Amino acid sequence: MSPTGVDLEEERRARLALSLVTEPGSFSYTMLAHELGGTGLLRALRQDPDRHQALRAAARRLPTVDVDATMAEARGKGLRFVVPGDEEWPAALSDLAAAGPLQKQGGPPIGLWVKGPLRLDAIGDAIAVVGSRSSTMYGEQIAGDLAAELGLAGVATISGAAYGIDYAAHRGAASARATNVAVLACGADLAYPAAHRRMLQHLGEEQAVISEAPPGGAPLRMRFLARNRLIAALAKGTVVVEAAARSGALNTLNWTQRLNRVAMAVPGPISSAPSEGAHEAIRSGMATLVTRAADVLELIGRPGEHLTEVPRGPATARDHLSADLRLLLDAVPVEMAARVDSIAYVASMEIVTARQGLQRLAEHGLVHHDDQGWRLTEQALR
Amino acid sequence: MSPTGVDLEEERRARLALSLVTEPGSFSYTMLAHELGGTGLLRALRQDPDRHQALRAAARRLPTVDVDATMAEARGKGLRFVVPGDEEWPAALSDLAAAGPLQKQGGPPIGLWVKGPLRLDAIGDAIAVVGSRSSTMYGEQIAGDLAAELGLAGVATISGAAYGIDYAAHRGAASARATNVAVLACGADLAYPAAHRRMLQHLGEEQAVISEAPPGGAPLRMRFLARNRLIAALAKGTVVVEAAARSGALNTLNWTQRLNRVAMAVPGPISSAPSEGAHEAIRSGMATLVTRAADVLELIGRPGEHLTEVPRGPATARDHLSADLRLLLDAVPVEMAARVDSIAYVASMEIVTARQGLQRLAEHGLVHHDDQGWRLTEQALR
Repeated sequence: MSPTGVDLEEERRARLALSLVTEPGSFSYTMLAHELGGTGLLRALRQDPDRHQALRAAARRLPTVDVDATMAEARGKGLRFVVPGDEEWPAALSDLAAAGPLQKQGGPPIGLWVKGPLRLDAIGDAIAVVGSRSSTMYGEQIAGDLAAELGLAGVATISGAAYGIDYAAHRGAASARATNVAVLACGADLAYPAAHRRMLQHLGEEQAVISEAPPGGAPLRMRFLARNRLIAALAKGTVVVEAAARSGALNTLNWTQRLNRVAMAVPGPISSAPSEGAHEAIRSGMATLVTRAADVLELIGRPGEHLTEVPRGPATARDHLSADLRLLLDAVPVEMAARVDSIAYVASMEIVTARQGLQRLAEHGLVHHDDQGWRLTEQALR
Repeated sequence: MSPTGVDLEEERRARLALSLVTEPGSFSYTMLAHELGGTGLLRALRQDPDRHQALRAAARRLPTVDVDATMAEARGKGLRFVVPGDEEWPAALSDLAAAGPLQKQGGPPIGLWVKGPLRLDAIGDAIAVVGSRSSTMYGEQIAGDLAAELGLAGVATISGAAYGIDYAAHRGAASARATNVAVLACGADLAYPAAHRRMLQHLGEEQAVISEAPPGGAPLRMRFLARNRLIAALAKGTVVVEAAARSGALNTLNWTQRLNRVAMAVPGPISSAPSEGAHEAIRSGMATLVTRAADVLELIGRPGEHLTEVPRGPATARDHLSADLRLLLDAVPVEMAARVDSIAYVASMEIVTARQGLQRLAEHGLVHHDDQGWRLTEQALR
């Protein structure tokens, strides 16, 4: 990504300048940086600020940025600026170059502002757990449990630190002491939403808080959409837990699909509005239905994990019978009594064989005999 | 299906005799009757009862049946015996010939015992609504509403008259005065379960109660499985509402799939055991997730129906703005104030244009100005 011979620190400074004059995820800029390198794009912008109408806004802002001052300020806040070429740069982000734009946003980020000791190349397998800010207790419980169980299986959680499902996911991952990454729409130095200050502080001190926006960058609506593509790209798959129609979580799922990652959704009561988006995503084939961490692990092909066991219901006494006894048992009416000759007739058995079999079924507690004949016991009906 | 030259009443008598000596849905007998006709199979059984080991049981019983007496008895109970060749014989049942056996059961029924004024060829488009006997109020509500809404759209409900979901489905269809068909595992003259006597009486007087088992036939476990294939075959699609793992409802869904009909399931809370089977069916791709009657109507390609509207959430004030104003609105921070110059900068607009636009957004009630600058209103955040 950085042309041969260009020094990594020069590239970092160029991308940092670009990060200050372009909107996060603006497809034209991210793709130019991807193709020309930060140094190359910066040179193009400087050569003639007025030449390219589409680039004019960024070019005109360039003279106002002070790369050294921003670097010093960021370092003071515990932030680092990670760029392609850095060892910790996540290779997965380059998939964004092929995924195209969505509402003019897309492309690999020009750089990532990171707070926290976790190196980005040490995140390992990760799942994005995202959903509605207006979540229910049902959804929060699921998101928390899911993140915790994934964490116990060694899988990181990535989310957006928003109210509701995002918060529950980070909390669940924290409870399992799992790798736990927040990707923000505002600067990685800001506590937004303010109510999550303590959680963000924890993540910034022990894990990683990531943003494409420079320090102090405000949480604009368009930045949330740009941010969602990073959440999708950094994870092996995205699980949506409660997403209203039109929600940001569905936007993340859309990116997940474009990136050929695993799109998943958890169902809920059909009467619950926050589950509507999840159901629609499953119905339309956009997402696969998952109900537990094992489903997720199976879908991301997590090595060493068992395949999801299809729930089969509890084993019953019937399961342990021979085929002949099972046939006989099936010939005893439900909620009615029958005489041995009629049972033998239905089971196509000799009457003597049927009588012996019924005796054995009675010993198993599956039938009993009364005035009217043979009946199934409660146990047999289970 | 009846060889040329064979009289329909002779064929009916032959199939009636076969119905009395074979188990409902026994694949070897149903397929022989399908290929040879009832008259042909009866002739084969009579020629040498001991020749074919597999057919011996039925052949040996033949001398004990009294076709005339059974016919008279059935007529007294308001039952008729419908066979291939009858005008009302449902053509859809012949799909069972190609669907193969499942646990040795399958094939088109040798005949159907029917109680009630509804002609089988007048059922029209129908949906099977089936599910757990151990249902929850959630599931019963859904099954009832679904059957009622399908009924209002002119689509019949077919179910098995069992406790729980089946009962709720029949009740829902009845509330919409819709076509409403019960397919039983026991004789169509019996009230099983006894608690549903009134409902079965209603269906037998105004709709149709159907069974492959002869009058008085007991509700054996294997007959429930055989019955499920008829429910699946008579409907355009099957909706499972709450089905435990291993349940009969999943068996019906399995038949639905084999018959190339539409297999559907309604999700529920993942914490609810009765929804486990439905979730597994959706997860595995066996069934499509549906949440309302419109989904079902769309999937069965019901003509004249609108496609399901994808839930899009309520329209917001933002939707009515011009692209420029929307861009400007998106440049106002969330939960923070910003000055007009910073907003203009983010939106890449001239400061004068931005100021005018903010004024118009304020008139729309989407932003307001205070000491610190411009902020989004509550309305804009919705």
